[in-house]
Amino acid sequence: MKGSQKPELDMEKTARFLGLSVSRLERLLEKRLLSRNWGKYTNFFRFETSVSGIERGSVLLQKRDGKLDLILGFPKIQRAMLLEPSINNHFSEIDKLIVEEKMNGYNVRVIEDAGKLIAFTRSGHVCPYSTEKVNYLLDLSFFRQYQDLVVHGEMAGPENPYVSKKVYDTQTLDFFVFDIRHKKTGQPLPVKQRRKLASSFGFKQVPFLGEFARKEAAEKIMQIIKKLGEMGHEGVVIKDLDMDLAPIKYTCSQSNCADLEHAFKFYNEVGRDYLYSRVVREGFQTVEWDEDEETMDKRALRLGRSIISPMADSVRRVGKGEKLYDEVTLRFQNPQTLQEFEEYFRRLGIDAIFDQVGYSGGELMVKLQKLNQSTTDKTESMWEGNLW
Amino acid sequence: MKGSQKPELDMEKTARFLGLSVSRLERLLEKRLLSRNWGKYTNFFRFETSVSGIERGSVLLQKRDGKLDLILGFPKIQRAMLLEPSINNHFSEIDKLIVEEKMNGYNVRVIEDAGKLIAFTRSGHVCPYSTEKVNYLLDLSFFRQYQDLVVHGEMAGPENPYVSKKVYDTQTLDFFVFDIRHKKTGQPLPVKQRRKLASSFGFKQVPFLGEFARKEAAEKIMQIIKKLGEMGHEGVVIKDLDMDLAPIKYTCSQSNCADLEHAFKFYNEVGRDYLYSRVVREGFQTVEWDEDEETMDKRALRLGRSIISPMADSVRRVGKGEKLYDEVTLRFQNPQTLQEFEEYFRRLGIDAIFDQVGYSGGELMVKLQKLNQSTTDKTESMWEGNLW
Repeated sequence: MKGSQKPELDMEKTARFLGLSVSRLERLLEKRLLSRNWGKYTNFFRFETSVSGIERGSVLLQKRDGKLDLILGFPKIQRAMLLEPSINNHFSEIDKLIVEEKMNGYNVRVIEDAGKLIAFTRSGHVCPYSTEKVNYLLDLSFFRQYQDLVVHGEMAGPENPYVSKKVYDTQTLDFFVFDIRHKKTGQPLPVKQRRKLASSFGFKQVPFLGEFARKEAAEKIMQIIKKLGEMGHEGVVIKDLDMDLAPIKYTCSQSNCADLEHAFKFYNEVGRDYLYSRVVREGFQTVEWDEDEETMDKRALRLGRSIISPMADSVRRVGKGEKLYDEVTLRFQNPQTLQEFEEYFRRLGIDAIFDQVGYSGGELMVKLQKLNQSTTDKTESMWEGNLW
Repeated sequence: MKGSQKPELDMEKTARFLGLSVSRLERLLEKRLLSRNWGKYTNFFRFETSVSGIERGSVLLQKRDGKLDLILGFPKIQRAMLLEPSINNHFSEIDKLIVEEKMNGYNVRVIEDAGKLIAFTRSGHVCPYSTEKVNYLLDLSFFRQYQDLVVHGEMAGPENPYVSKKVYDTQTLDFFVFDIRHKKTGQPLPVKQRRKLASSFGFKQVPFLGEFARKEAAEKIMQIIKKLGEMGHEGVVIKDLDMDLAPIKYTCSQSNCADLEHAFKFYNEVGRDYLYSRVVREGFQTVEWDEDEETMDKRALRLGRSIISPMADSVRRVGKGEKLYDEVTLRFQNPQTLQEFEEYFRRLGIDAIFDQVGYSGGELMVKLQKLNQSTTDKTESMWEGNLW
């Protein structure tokens, strides 16, 4: 694997750049906790664990001229369970808050390297599909002008290999900026400056939902959340204008339930924590919103259905001899990207079938089936009369 | 801890008796995987892990005369997810099945030692409360006559420190035999022989719900389960008359939901697997029973309520400054037993308050509050505006 085309890291220089000892750096590489990317992008190294202030998902980049760069991982946004106390506690020192929409797609970081844009997933992988997209969705001149900035965005829409949603204003897949940060420090731009800058380069952004006095924010956000919920949208992120305080998130019950509904199609693969965390949110929301019995029953029915109904459907399907899978349509400008994306899924261990179904507007249309063999097998086994 | 009153184990003899090497036995004792009981019962040793065919929860007993005995752990009963295929597959070689009720209490094993009955919990601990009970609920002469037999029963009823249920035919706590097995082999008596024997000594038993041809069993059991569910009972155990094949269990949706309803009062302590396993059962049952939309919605509402409603109640209580706990009334014949039981809870790390509230019929009445500090603390923290 140590091919000659892969530039060797200068260990002393890299260790100094990262603020680590050489021996620590060597150990990280040896244990693949700092892991070199494959394929075209062997000059990227992914942090598979958090290391002395560099969080998991951060990417070390060795540029052509030998210079190093670090693209910090996107920090996890903490969740409010009870909106009003959380806002008053977390933002106690500021008076005005901005609310932006939290869109439901996948989180990517975009930088420029050697004249091309590169899209990293949350874990720090280069996603070939996302990378192709951002190269025609985003204006390269921004990145040339602001070499030190990383653009953070949600890739959302139906043609989405990870989280396919039809509720947004795109028929395909689009990139919505929600943050712009400095590379090595992770320092974010203030919200309004970021929105203005992104807008001036024609970038789409997550919707701006309002600027509220802290005292009225919880009430306003409750109204917003109810509307977003009805539309099948996910929720909001509440931000300090200056971005000195970390933002916090809050989501709609309908979105929790939609998550569960999707997950329980493949009930044998549902993370136990994934289920638990979503049901717990319902209990807090119903209390804070002081719901009467009828409203709480609507919530209970929605929650119960979101678990039972997709699962029952899957059990029935397998009973009829079908296999369970998720299907989305993707489109590729370059057939080479499809090849790279297939290889990417193989490397990640995702069991998938790619089926080229034709061309549309010069783009290659591909049906992607993500197979869920584990749930299919478990269900077959139950139909055969095996015990749980 | 190696007090002189504790009889030392003869290592060679014990190893031979258990079919282990002396060095293995020494290691098990050293790592406390074979763990000596405390208090009055230092002649019992509990297997904290499964060892060469001796399952976790088994108890090694050193009798006064130095002889050894082994009370095997009660084997886990596997669960049917789809009743009809499971019955046909698991019991394929036999034509007739017996269905007994699975009662919802806690599982104890009873033996006689030195003239007294001893009740072991599933994990192999001597429970002082259960031990006192069985000494007046069960006829000692049975155990004198059948030294080689272990009586397995469910202790069920409202005055239950572990699982308090008011749905059974007892105002206090009673012992219902569901199995009688040979000590060292674990070999069970055939169902009818066991029922006859237990009855001849006046033991209460789990209800006998019928003897069915295998082909009709699934349909009959579905009817039984629906009735038991309406009564708030737990479910059934399906058995081979000869007990050559292992029994299997099947439970009511209402019982799954009652479990969740109790658990979600203390939402922060709910095992993730506990939640997951219960919701998954609902998906299979609705498919096998071929429910229409309305019936499935009833199920979904029941499931959703069982999670949201107790949790919302707890969040509200803590919001009002209350602490969360579970409360049951227990009664003790001997104040010494109460002391031992308090010590027992302390040793198990259960945070509880025992409050003597008076006498009734010569028995000491005690209110037991099991505190759930973790959920109380977490909820307080949310009300204070901390993030999840």
